[in-house]
Amino acid sequence: MRISKLISKPEKQAPADTDSINAKLLLQANYVRMEMAGVYSWLPLGLRVLNKVQNIIRHELDAIGAQEILMPALQPKENWETSGRWNTVDVLFKVPSQTGREYALGPTHEEIVTPLVGSYIHSYKDLPVSVYQIQTKYRDELRAKSGILRGREFGMKDMYSFHADREDFEKYYELVKQTYLKIFIRLGLDAKVVEASGGSFTKKYSHEFQVITPAGEDKIIACEACTFAQNSEISEYKEGDKCPNCGKKLKDVKGIEIANIFDLGGKFTDAFKVNYTDAEGKQNPVVMGCYGIGTTRLVGAITEVHNDAKGLSWPLSVAPFHVHLVSLNAKGADEVARVYDAAEALYNDLLDQGIEVIWDDREGLSAGEKFSTADLLGIPLRLVVSTKTLDQNSIEFKQRNSDENELIQMDDVIDSIKEFTKY
Amino acid sequence: MRISKLISKPEKQAPADTDSINAKLLLQANYVRMEMAGVYSWLPLGLRVLNKVQNIIRHELDAIGAQEILMPALQPKENWETSGRWNTVDVLFKVPSQTGREYALGPTHEEIVTPLVGSYIHSYKDLPVSVYQIQTKYRDELRAKSGILRGREFGMKDMYSFHADREDFEKYYELVKQTYLKIFIRLGLDAKVVEASGGSFTKKYSHEFQVITPAGEDKIIACEACTFAQNSEISEYKEGDKCPNCGKKLKDVKGIEIANIFDLGGKFTDAFKVNYTDAEGKQNPVVMGCYGIGTTRLVGAITEVHNDAKGLSWPLSVAPFHVHLVSLNAKGADEVARVYDAAEALYNDLLDQGIEVIWDDREGLSAGEKFSTADLLGIPLRLVVSTKTLDQNSIEFKQRNSDENELIQMDDVIDSIKEFTKY
Repeated sequence: MRISKLISKPEKQAPADTDSINAKLLLQANYVRMEMAGVYSWLPLGLRVLNKVQNIIRHELDAIGAQEILMPALQPKENWETSGRWNTVDVLFKVPSQTGREYALGPTHEEIVTPLVGSYIHSYKDLPVSVYQIQTKYRDELRAKSGILRGREFGMKDMYSFHADREDFEKYYELVKQTYLKIFIRLGLDAKVVEASGGSFTKKYSHEFQVITPAGEDKIIACEACTFAQNSEISEYKEGDKCPNCGKKLKDVKGIEIANIFDLGGKFTDAFKVNYTDAEGKQNPVVMGCYGIGTTRLVGAITEVHNDAKGLSWPLSVAPFHVHLVSLNAKGADEVARVYDAAEALYNDLLDQGIEVIWDDREGLSAGEKFSTADLLGIPLRLVVSTKTLDQNSIEFKQRNSDENELIQMDDVIDSIKEFTKY
Repeated sequence: MRISKLISKPEKQAPADTDSINAKLLLQANYVRMEMAGVYSWLPLGLRVLNKVQNIIRHELDAIGAQEILMPALQPKENWETSGRWNTVDVLFKVPSQTGREYALGPTHEEIVTPLVGSYIHSYKDLPVSVYQIQTKYRDELRAKSGILRGREFGMKDMYSFHADREDFEKYYELVKQTYLKIFIRLGLDAKVVEASGGSFTKKYSHEFQVITPAGEDKIIACEACTFAQNSEISEYKEGDKCPNCGKKLKDVKGIEIANIFDLGGKFTDAFKVNYTDAEGKQNPVVMGCYGIGTTRLVGAITEVHNDAKGLSWPLSVAPFHVHLVSLNAKGADEVARVYDAAEALYNDLLDQGIEVIWDDREGLSAGEKFSTADLLGIPLRLVVSTKTLDQNSIEFKQRNSDENELIQMDDVIDSIKEFTKY
């Protein structure tokens, strides 16, 4: 990708009235555009990040045998009446139609997935099953806030599992918990498993995955030594108390909730009459769990954690590109052409090698302006071609999260990049 | 994928009350599930087809320099008032909110993309630009019909281009037309370019891409010899007239509209005040075009064209899998195990080779039942392992759209598949 061709070039100034670091940086870098409060468009660079986040999730869920499907956002009112939630979910958008019917605009998909999977469950041989989708959700929030963290339209991965008994469910619940932690490590996030209430779903236990950061809007009470952590809403403990687990001190922290997992028990399978026949021919209730990850929210959480005063700094796994190539302005038409041609040759070499590269090929910008753009966009590796480097048949090689700037020989560039990007 | 594990196994019986071949076959094969009229869930096999269709489109549009973005379905009422369409688009879903605001649920995205791209257009150097998205659209249809061909929620690729003058626009319009034809050939569709009215968008010319089939709901008058074709709604000609282009005979045919392209002129760029500064510093209006492809509808159109009395028959490019492996039932536990083990070894070999394979590993089904399933699912290549083939150290190799059934040596299987799937 040449920045000169990019439809949405990074802005020189940060937007004035943002309420969060993620909004400020993602808007200034033009990864996203705000259409109205809580509703964003994803621009070319932002969409690349979002797709990488989604593909990492997909890869790990496929590996535990979950099957991907895609359910609609427009949902029949009847299904929400069956579950009893048509009038109890306060953020439910209700859509009137010229047919006289009313639809729900799904904030979640239990009302669709339960009868869907239920229609394929006949006997114990059909269990367990687990399905997921990566899809767009809607919440009629009174106040949207915190940039892309709390939106009215947002991306989510929601997974639902169905089991013959509680033992099988609990084994899977634990497997998903471990899989989620693996996903977040790949995304460059250190997530804490936090005990939480069941919310509107269940009175049984649930867990949240929280990224601990002052930018978070959730209050957590966490042990300074062990993994114990509870959402303050449900905790009996307060800062300074002894950890019930290890006896060390508890403290108040803030977190961004990036995922949650719920034991739904029979709440939805009972409502939609989803049963199975066991080996003895007896009808039994199906046990269900649900497991969400906020995909667009994850991009916001990664932004909140991976940035500095100069801009974004993406983990390699989700960076929109791996290499940010900069060709510097030079004096005189011959030198300008020499630098441009060398950069273009290198750019084409990198593309041929399958290396994901963005090239700041714009004319008339100063070195300072191009370096600021590189820092703002946050691509992990920056390469600079200039008159000075070409005189030494070399190139400047700098990692975004390091101050070290080394000159490497032109012939070694590809090897050095491949050494850096292997992960 | 093992069919024994598939959440949504193919049904033995076709559904009773379908209004189209695509609904009948896609529902029986469990590629999709109907949630309500005009609203479908995509099940694992169907989603694989849809993703392949989308990726072929993506690949060809990226190749002509269009940039992928993702815009929201929930859109501000104000934008629709600016364009003057809030009260003129009869299929527009209007969503009330507890904030007191109203939103549109986008049936199209001119109201979002015009100010979006407009905010990045300053001078002639920023033109031309072209952006596209693959996204979900909503239409409040009085009657949804024809299976997944006309839905209330459906997938679309919509692209929008912006130009400094009409000459540049017309060049791009022609390029998109050729690119679309290339896409449809890759999808196994022979599409006809049909002249049509501008609909609610424009009074200028537009073109539809129609797949000619009796299942179509559009009436077309087309030349039996040359490429001349007009939508009957705008045509002055009738069946039997002479073609104005070549003089041969015109006839009435029916088509499924899978795409359309529009000259929008200044309709939206005027409304949203999108101008650019030319080389002389003068302000000029921006010329705009839009280009749609129905992605979910394409799956329906492919289904209507590629089927026979036994079921689906996917083109290789969009088939959910390339190989359908069948292990037949045998007599006696030893023989059953021998066939199963040989099939499993072959299945793992194919996976190791990166071959997309689905294996009907179910127990207790007859050869007839498994062959019917294979015909219904429509995977291009069927391999059969049985006691009989194993005795000859071979395997049965049959193409879905051929009656020929050949025995090939086990050692040659991989090479034969690779020979078949190279395209």
